[in-house]
Amino acid sequence: MRVEVMRGILGSNKAAADANRKFWDDNRILALDFMGSPGSGKTSVFEGTIAELTKRGRTLKVIEGDVASDNDARRIEQAGAEAFQINTGGACHLHAAMVSRAMEQLDLDGVQIILIENVGNLVCPTAFLLGAHFRILVASVPEGDDKPEKYPVAFREADGIILNKIDLLPHLPFDAGRFWDLCDQLNAEAPQFAISCTTGEGIDTLCDFIERHLAELAG
Amino acid sequence: MRVEVMRGILGSNKAAADANRKFWDDNRILALDFMGSPGSGKTSVFEGTIAELTKRGRTLKVIEGDVASDNDARRIEQAGAEAFQINTGGACHLHAAMVSRAMEQLDLDGVQIILIENVGNLVCPTAFLLGAHFRILVASVPEGDDKPEKYPVAFREADGIILNKIDLLPHLPFDAGRFWDLCDQLNAEAPQFAISCTTGEGIDTLCDFIERHLAELAG
Repeated sequence: MRVEVMRGILGSNKAAADANRKFWDDNRILALDFMGSPGSGKTSVFEGTIAELTKRGRTLKVIEGDVASDNDARRIEQAGAEAFQINTGGACHLHAAMVSRAMEQLDLDGVQIILIENVGNLVCPTAFLLGAHFRILVASVPEGDDKPEKYPVAFREADGIILNKIDLLPHLPFDAGRFWDLCDQLNAEAPQFAISCTTGEGIDTLCDFIERHLAELAG
Repeated sequence: MRVEVMRGILGSNKAAADANRKFWDDNRILALDFMGSPGSGKTSVFEGTIAELTKRGRTLKVIEGDVASDNDARRIEQAGAEAFQINTGGACHLHAAMVSRAMEQLDLDGVQIILIENVGNLVCPTAFLLGAHFRILVASVPEGDDKPEKYPVAFREADGIILNKIDLLPHLPFDAGRFWDLCDQLNAEAPQFAISCTTGEGIDTLCDFIERHLAELAG
């Protein structure tokens, strides 16, 4: 019974995700869905990415997903990009339909890139695709180097893996070699990005990745 | 339809949680359920607590909940307490029935305290009580001082709030005053613990809290 209902929910989510993807493809908009634990630094990665891509002449907007508060949307707008805040009101992940409704509210004229921040959660968002071209997992140094072993599905299904807060490596017992080895074992295809939003290290490489795929989409 | 099914799941979870509580009460065992983000340091808090409470002559065992891996159970056994590892196989929180089954596997002769580590997740475990006497929320400095605003349900329903990794305060822009003010607004009753598992600061205060409630339970 429970499985049936879950299939129903996942099925209708899949239809909405497919519609989102078609809309983005038709409009040559590259969409990226970022997931990670609470406090892994997803919003900080967005702030750095917005600054760098804007400097490169790119136009981007942001969809922020949170259980509550509009803190992140306010941070994004201070960073210079329009943001639409979704409050899930308790739900532990975004649904594709929530993103569809957010897209209807945003003025997308001339927009090239949509960054979506999922609810802070390393488990539930994995089952609910939003239709984005890439799903990027944000892990961070303070969470510990064993996270791929403990949350394998999220790491296995990511199209890119960010290790954030690398400026904290001197202060913490984190074995970066072990972390990336575990990532390789679960998902050898996903590009790997080591980032510090404090120093800015690695943001340019992430932006190169985004621009390369934007160029492919534009054909 | 979906609400009906959720009610059904929560209803059967409530029955199992009540049975767990009755078992613990009957056997004068104090049970504590720890929840927090992946990497907030729940297992490290357990390691420090086991060392201190064992030194004080207390007998405790641990139930570890993870999506995958037995990393945490192995850490706990190295710290000197028997641990039972539950792998949820994808589920984003423990159910009360999982804990009941774990209790059947543990030799509880002479055990005074059960520490339960829930799956790393600041959203989903809140809806599924396990029957424990106290639910302790573990937040940590690297996650940022705005977490109570963004995950209010978890903070509102906690019976105690730990701010972990306070040794990292000099390295991070974390306003501890703001964090505790937000906790006060959501939940003025929950005792607050500032802890560093690296230096050991604050572990004794948490152990005092546990021993005080153990004495009450023993009557």
